[in-house]
Amino acid sequence: MTLRDRAGAFIDRPLVRNFILGVILFNAAILGLETSDMAMARAGGLITLLDSICLAIFVIEIAIKLFARGGGFFHDGWNIFDFVIVAISLIPAAQGLSVLRALRILRLLRVLSVTPSLRRVVEGLMSALPGMASVFLLMGIIFYIGSVMATKLFGDSFPEWFGTLGRSAYSLFQIMTLESWSMGIVRPVMEVYPQAWAFFVPFILVTTFAVVNLVVGLIVNSMQDAHHEEETEKTGNYRDDVTARLDRIEKLLEKR
Amino acid sequence: MTLRDRAGAFIDRPLVRNFILGVILFNAAILGLETSDMAMARAGGLITLLDSICLAIFVIEIAIKLFARGGGFFHDGWNIFDFVIVAISLIPAAQGLSVLRALRILRLLRVLSVTPSLRRVVEGLMSALPGMASVFLLMGIIFYIGSVMATKLFGDSFPEWFGTLGRSAYSLFQIMTLESWSMGIVRPVMEVYPQAWAFFVPFILVTTFAVVNLVVGLIVNSMQDAHHEEETEKTGNYRDDVTARLDRIEKLLEKR
Amino acid sequence: MTLRDRAGAFIDRPLVRNFILGVILFNAAILGLETSDMAMARAGGLITLLDSICLAIFVIEIAIKLFARGGGFFHDGWNIFDFVIVAISLIPAAQGLSVLRALRILRLLRVLSVTPSLRRVVEGLMSALPGMASVFLLMGIIFYIGSVMATKLFGDSFPEWFGTLGRSAYSLFQIMTLESWSMGIVRPVMEVYPQAWAFFVPFILVTTFAVVNLVVGLIVNSMQDAHHEEETEKTGNYRDDVTARLDRIEKLLEKR
Amino acid sequence: MTLRDRAGAFIDRPLVRNFILGVILFNAAILGLETSDMAMARAGGLITLLDSICLAIFVIEIAIKLFARGGGFFHDGWNIFDFVIVAISLIPAAQGLSVLRALRILRLLRVLSVTPSLRRVVEGLMSALPGMASVFLLMGIIFYIGSVMATKLFGDSFPEWFGTLGRSAYSLFQIMTLESWSMGIVRPVMEVYPQAWAFFVPFILVTTFAVVNLVVGLIVNSMQDAHHEEETEKTGNYRDDVTARLDRIEKLLEKR
Repeated sequence: MTLRDRAGAFIDRPLVRNFILGVILFNAAILGLETSDMAMARAGGLITLLDSICLAIFVIEIAIKLFARGGGFFHDGWNIFDFVIVAISLIPAAQGLSVLRALRILRLLRVLSVTPSLRRVVEGLMSALPGMASVFLLMGIIFYIGSVMATKLFGDSFPEWFGTLGRSAYSLFQIMTLESWSMGIVRPVMEVYPQAWAFFVPFILVTTFAVVNLVVGLIVNSMQDAHHEEETEKTGNYRDDVTARLDRIEKLLEKR
Repeated sequence: MTLRDRAGAFIDRPLVRNFILGVILFNAAILGLETSDMAMARAGGLITLLDSICLAIFVIEIAIKLFARGGGFFHDGWNIFDFVIVAISLIPAAQGLSVLRALRILRLLRVLSVTPSLRRVVEGLMSALPGMASVFLLMGIIFYIGSVMATKLFGDSFPEWFGTLGRSAYSLFQIMTLESWSMGIVRPVMEVYPQAWAFFVPFILVTTFAVVNLVVGLIVNSMQDAHHEEETEKTGNYRDDVTARLDRIEKLLEKR
Repeated sequence: MTLRDRAGAFIDRPLVRNFILGVILFNAAILGLETSDMAMARAGGLITLLDSICLAIFVIEIAIKLFARGGGFFHDGWNIFDFVIVAISLIPAAQGLSVLRALRILRLLRVLSVTPSLRRVVEGLMSALPGMASVFLLMGIIFYIGSVMATKLFGDSFPEWFGTLGRSAYSLFQIMTLESWSMGIVRPVMEVYPQAWAFFVPFILVTTFAVVNLVVGLIVNSMQDAHHEEETEKTGNYRDDVTARLDRIEKLLEKR
Repeated sequence: MTLRDRAGAFIDRPLVRNFILGVILFNAAILGLETSDMAMARAGGLITLLDSICLAIFVIEIAIKLFARGGGFFHDGWNIFDFVIVAISLIPAAQGLSVLRALRILRLLRVLSVTPSLRRVVEGLMSALPGMASVFLLMGIIFYIGSVMATKLFGDSFPEWFGTLGRSAYSLFQIMTLESWSMGIVRPVMEVYPQAWAFFVPFILVTTFAVVNLVVGLIVNSMQDAHHEEETEKTGNYRDDVTARLDRIEKLLEKR
């Protein structure tokens, strides 16, 4: 047994896995405490130290895994996921950018890769995405067209909402979620362009319809998967049985 | 027949059950009247008296049940439910805390434990929860990560919304329900941090997607339960019949 | 052929039906015109006259039907529906109450009873309601409990929103639809009662969950109806065929 | 091979198709750039020129197709779609109306007709519409009745929201989407007409229920389509096989 194999066996031990899970949860609690000014004032040094220790443990774990698996490490999506999260955490340790510091809590996402049941849930959610790719593409086209039109039509009078393509896209996303679409956006716009509803109401209808179809697609897919798994096996067994019996009966009859 | 058995038989009689149901409904009406200043001014004493009588009846009922069932009383979730509700009502009768007084209306929930059809509905709703546990856990992780990030990123400039972990969690819940998320929260935040949409829009997409998946899971589960109950029996009977007949035919053929 | 039969045959003729449909639509257009001040200023007398003529036609139709069907008239829900709508229209013709005048447009609903395809749609929607009765009852209980609690807890400080049971019920309905629940209601309430979220957030979760379950129930019911209609006949025929054939085979074998 | 055939073959070549797809995407990018004042200030002439070239390419493509297909060109819905979009683009090229200029981005919709996978998605979405026709008709009736009633009841006091049939219809659409329905519209209205909730709350319940039924209908339809495609073939084969075998067994038995 080489050192590599030993490292691989070590890292896969349930005890080690559970220890890592504990460190992740402890680290999340530590990072939660960091948001409290009072806690930082009283025990800021200790909190920062504990956070660094957690990070060190993650780095060591990843390093051992990398050593054990070698190039195969990057063939598993979850390994890449862990690697990126820990890598992000290493940058703010060096620098002091507040956004990067905030990203450190993403380490809690490692719970997903460590807990098999959550892993399955995430994989289940992910598996639904490719089937929805063409509807997403369609939504993208609708949003691009809507943004260009809104910018050209209302951009001059409402630069805050429709001044650039980006702002229009954001405003249209807000309108699609139906948040303050009328009282907040369309009624003010209609005071300048009375026909503006002819752009926004169809936009709402089309995007809502597309979203509903996404959900319907999700439901139908999940139904079929569930249907298959369960029904097909029993039905298949029964059918095979009937066919086999009929076969035997035919043979018995033909023999004579 | 011991006194215990007699007490148990008494409490299970339809007449007694319906009487208790009547008292529950009457008590709910009394507690509704208590919210009216006019009614309290005119007949406050009577209303309080009637409420106390209702509570006394509930206490006696629970006491009889406790005596009849003994320790087995607490093996039924609905009994515990009744016990807790009546127990809560006994505290404010002693004290004068307004919140505890407001909780007395929860006694109306006893309708659920007394009416079999509502009992089934609630049990049906409850039975859906365990299957959604891992998605709930996932939502909890997302909310914790979101709260920590929002507090670190926006807490200094918007203490009202993102000052503490609790406030951030509440604000993120509001954003997840899409209530005033843009006009009320994100647009003001974007005036200070122009890139804030890069945090909130993905948060909305992820949580909405998770909620949609909860609903899809509910639908698929209900479908399958309904499918099973109904289809399987008839199909099963038919299949058993076909298998039995083929059996007999085979035997008849082999005998000769 | 008695006069009754002749009247019944007359009222069921396609030509008469289509004429009545035409009158309904024409009447709806007339009542739409009535909302325009300009149209009323120019041709108010004509519009009122035409409306009266339409109403007279409806009264005559109902009278003929009543004569033709006799007491059986009221056994059909749609006839009662027509009767009530026309009866409502006759009151404002006498009086001048603006609300009753506004109700006259409900005559357009007669399109539902006259057009078979719309009739089926409405009957389909209605047929879903009884199955949801116990969830509706549950929602009613939740709303009553919520209203009593909200009135007792927040009624003194926010009489506009929670001053009476009725106002609380309305505000809770608004909160259930998620409209301005946080920025409009709960955040202002939390400024006085910081723990108010502990009442409203669970209320939102429970009512939303109940509504989702209503929708899930609708979907499952519709699925099963659709599944039945279509699948069962073909499957049933096949199964009967298999059973009959197996029967014959058994008999042939036993005979010898 | 006539010139027509050659033109038809040319236009159907994958290379030509992909070239057209490229021009569409390039044109969309150009029209996006047009919304940027900076880009227009620096390279306005070039952008306008490139846009004109793209349009010229589309005109030539349509002309070749028209020549190749002749009258058959207009039998395909997607060809009419392309024709109308390019025709709309030709008007603003002549005139200077800002609305017509904004419509030019609709050319990006040609991606739908050119890409087979998006074509299928759109055709799938469209195929769901006819089945929902009667519910749409019902919604139209509800909206017309609601608009007439709202205009008559609240038009005098709230001309901004319910002054005309059109404004009422828009406000009711807003209320149906639940956007600011209570804090924005119904609470202010209730200050003048305290019973206004008796109109708006049922309106919300009825329209929401109708929308939910539309979605349920969509789900059931999609389910059945998916169910059919997949299940029926296998089941059909099995059943045919069983019937054929039973046939043979019967014949074998009868022969002797």
